[in-house]
Amino acid sequence: MRSVYSVMQTEPLGLHLVLDRAEALFADRAVLDRGPGGVRRTDYAGVFAGARALAALLADLGLRPGDSVATFSWNTAEHLCAYIALPGSGLVMHTVNIRMGAEETAYTLAHAGDRAVLVDASLWEVWAKVAPPDTLEHVVVTGEAPADLPAAHGGARVHRFALGTPADTGTAPAPAPRPWRRPADEHEPAAICYTSGTTGHPKAVVYSHRSVYLHALTLCGADAFAVSHHDTVLPVVPMFHANAWNLPYAALLAGAGLALPGRHLDPERLGPFISASGATFSAGVPTVWSALAEAVRAGRVPADALAPLERVVIGGSAAPPALLDALAKLGVAPVHAWGMTECSPVGLVATDPLTADEDERAAARRSQGRPLPGLAVRSAAADGEVPWDGATPGELEISGPYVVDRYYRPEKDTEDSFTRTPDGRRWLRTGDMVVVGRRGYVTLVDRAKDMVKSGGEWISSVDVENRLTAHPGVRESAVIAVPDPTWGERPLAVVARAEGAEGGPVAAEDLAAYLAESLPRWQVPDRFVFVDEVPKTGVGKFDKKRMRAVYGAAG
Amino acid sequence: MRSVYSVMQTEPLGLHLVLDRAEALFADRAVLDRGPGGVRRTDYAGVFAGARALAALLADLGLRPGDSVATFSWNTAEHLCAYIALPGSGLVMHTVNIRMGAEETAYTLAHAGDRAVLVDASLWEVWAKVAPPDTLEHVVVTGEAPADLPAAHGGARVHRFALGTPADTGTAPAPAPRPWRRPADEHEPAAICYTSGTTGHPKAVVYSHRSVYLHALTLCGADAFAVSHHDTVLPVVPMFHANAWNLPYAALLAGAGLALPGRHLDPERLGPFISASGATFSAGVPTVWSALAEAVRAGRVPADALAPLERVVIGGSAAPPALLDALAKLGVAPVHAWGMTECSPVGLVATDPLTADEDERAAARRSQGRPLPGLAVRSAAADGEVPWDGATPGELEISGPYVVDRYYRPEKDTEDSFTRTPDGRRWLRTGDMVVVGRRGYVTLVDRAKDMVKSGGEWISSVDVENRLTAHPGVRESAVIAVPDPTWGERPLAVVARAEGAEGGPVAAEDLAAYLAESLPRWQVPDRFVFVDEVPKTGVGKFDKKRMRAVYGAAG
Repeated sequence: MRSVYSVMQTEPLGLHLVLDRAEALFADRAVLDRGPGGVRRTDYAGVFAGARALAALLADLGLRPGDSVATFSWNTAEHLCAYIALPGSGLVMHTVNIRMGAEETAYTLAHAGDRAVLVDASLWEVWAKVAPPDTLEHVVVTGEAPADLPAAHGGARVHRFALGTPADTGTAPAPAPRPWRRPADEHEPAAICYTSGTTGHPKAVVYSHRSVYLHALTLCGADAFAVSHHDTVLPVVPMFHANAWNLPYAALLAGAGLALPGRHLDPERLGPFISASGATFSAGVPTVWSALAEAVRAGRVPADALAPLERVVIGGSAAPPALLDALAKLGVAPVHAWGMTECSPVGLVATDPLTADEDERAAARRSQGRPLPGLAVRSAAADGEVPWDGATPGELEISGPYVVDRYYRPEKDTEDSFTRTPDGRRWLRTGDMVVVGRRGYVTLVDRAKDMVKSGGEWISSVDVENRLTAHPGVRESAVIAVPDPTWGERPLAVVARAEGAEGGPVAAEDLAAYLAESLPRWQVPDRFVFVDEVPKTGVGKFDKKRMRAVYGAAG
Repeated sequence: MRSVYSVMQTEPLGLHLVLDRAEALFADRAVLDRGPGGVRRTDYAGVFAGARALAALLADLGLRPGDSVATFSWNTAEHLCAYIALPGSGLVMHTVNIRMGAEETAYTLAHAGDRAVLVDASLWEVWAKVAPPDTLEHVVVTGEAPADLPAAHGGARVHRFALGTPADTGTAPAPAPRPWRRPADEHEPAAICYTSGTTGHPKAVVYSHRSVYLHALTLCGADAFAVSHHDTVLPVVPMFHANAWNLPYAALLAGAGLALPGRHLDPERLGPFISASGATFSAGVPTVWSALAEAVRAGRVPADALAPLERVVIGGSAAPPALLDALAKLGVAPVHAWGMTECSPVGLVATDPLTADEDERAAARRSQGRPLPGLAVRSAAADGEVPWDGATPGELEISGPYVVDRYYRPEKDTEDSFTRTPDGRRWLRTGDMVVVGRRGYVTLVDRAKDMVKSGGEWISSVDVENRLTAHPGVRESAVIAVPDPTWGERPLAVVARAEGAEGGPVAAEDLAAYLAESLPRWQVPDRFVFVDEVPKTGVGKFDKKRMRAVYGAAG
């Protein structure tokens, strides 16, 4: 029997499809960034000209397809040039977290095999502290570099690159527009990101051209982030963290405007930048939005600064319901999302279900969301899959064409991070304890390792945090487990008070009484520690590891 | 030097990702269709139960992954079951155009190697006339089949399938939900469609799982069709034509409601079905929308029947600007699109550019649109690519991962339908003469073969048609070239008059004078033929081939 075969093109899925498109169709779309000199305005044509100059410089330095190049930068137009020029030339982009220590930085640069690094001029001093002595061949200082830049740093030659200036080799004239490099194979690497674990060195995820393309296309979906040509996208999430949730590529694919906020993300500078850039869409961790909402409430940022903003994606950690409500009151639609570097990174988005039941809609909006197209999720316990009943907790497992299959050259075996089902599918174990509802909405119960086990019963730290944050006297709070001789573990709350709350600063007794109204007494923390700022990791998440180290002594 | 490699999953892009998702997340989303018994209402759960019963029946009949199965049906819920069950079981779906003659039908069934066909009960008589005598093993009559159905037809055994009834073998209990079949390779065939040429038999395009998935995902994009969970999608375009523009799969991916209009597409039945189904999104050829707009104007369909409808995709042939304006006046946003079976099929969509220039926006909305993500377009003349200057005509060429690379087993060489550029890309020559503007908007000048060459100068038949259709006395019009002893060719207009136009039926002199106001005299047709209905092909496009045969004698 003759078998029918497909006759469709096998054009590789790659970033050339995004970059050629953006350059051809959207030349005059705006790109703004905010640097030491204030707000700078250019357009796709300007950014692509910069990217071509950067690509020419790197080629002149001898970098070839397959080589890895690091970036060390804020969200700037030069960083966007790197997002274009590196994978657009077949290079592998390694976005280094600027907040890592010297030891981890050296580890990741060596692990990725980076030959060069692009360092933001304003981060030169930071870089100098963490730079490995001699593994790199080239350092390119981007943006407004000081005149007295040394010619070499460690064993590396030093070069300059800035938007709108010719490449500093002086030999390469701006090349005529030509297609960006088409990967020979769509599984070629496009970018490498590191994700910190609780022990050992960070683990590496290498995205392929295919996975980045598919994820960016998926984010443009009407029920995902609906990124459109008519949007101006302001990624608050750093471009050194999980490809800024892939928003730069989604924006380029859609031809959206881009507003890159640079170094300063405090409400007093972010608010006016939203206003000046006309940003319609933004995305970041909950603490950024809490601070902004609080600043508007306290009158430090005028409410009309947020006028252009239509929707804000909140992810990276669970958003307290009180924050979702506060944003909605400011006229900004909050879009709750969940992701992991391992999932490219966005995996779940909490867009509305179609139901007349307002309680169900509200619960859905507060959940972590439903899987994006392409992804499958399951909730697993030791004895197999748990039902989607909205009640039984299990560990979230996720599978799909833009989910990691394994880590890249891990320093120890990581097979326990994955499972395989009999149908041959591979599943990433996310480490998140969840319940899944009837329509597939996933609600985070806790990080598996952040659950508090008191007297044999589980307490969800996220649940207690959400309730605490709803108290008007609380700006933000984190709940951790501390060892307890009687109960095994007990919850401890680290609380930052809201400024100028009515009735003066809130006290521990107030909070304990408040929680006891809605929680069983044994779930109420025994201790409340008041701090100016809840400790956070380099990417703005609560740093529970550090808090456990500081407050973990038996109380 | 060590090379970094990607560590992402290589999960195949396939319809299992769409079907498993739809079944898991959207069980209670509505599906309506309109059959002989009126409007029938079910939901995804009902349709998927039907699809599982159909898949079980076909497996019982011995059909195995890789086998081809034909459908012969209107847009019905049973046809939707086939869209799910066939590629969801690894079978290749061949949607037969019910308006082909016996010879072409037999050719395509033999060419596709179909082992079975699913025939809509209401089309049994039509099928009996075109059915090949003995190449098929099984005929499954779908929907409300008469009680006295024969046990065999030609050499084929006859079976029944209807939504909500068990499979007629009686042996297969409804299987418990399990994942739909995951293709071993994403390039496995999912569906086969035939496209009629001007000479010879229809040519075959075989879609892969990958191409259907990518195209459906792309259609859900905010700047494409933005198909959302909150939409109810009403495909007027037949499911036997180019996979109904891939809307069924886009709708299933998004979890949109589906409203399938069945056999009757006249305004008097389509209007109330829009109203009853709450359709927010529809799509079809211009003539359907002209007839509907005209029926509303003439009071035969109440304007509020269209109240739920938010946007309508018009494609298949160029929409006259007058039609776009008429729809906008009815409160429906017209979305002009362009496609070919060879492009999965939608390739261009005319969503708004971001510009303050209202003239440019209007021109963009009237154009055929910009390429969807993933696609590249060029405009080519004999001596190479022509510039995107909005003025120089060239033939539109298109390339991308859901464009055909070649035809499936063509009866003669079709290499002249394709070109290849030095970068290795393959381009489909569309046969459409276009101009491309600065921002990549493509405007159709004419089908290459429909251009009229008069005295050595080209006349665009589409341009003359658009002007004619703007005249209040004209409902629709087609312009063709007829041989002329002096000029080589001259334009002839075939005109259907608007009913009840002010001032009585329009005359040829009126139209000639009207056109002469905006066109050079030599571009005005010499002859106007008035007809009740402009002849159309089986898929509702103007049948210029037939008109040339009828009116082509030198005038």
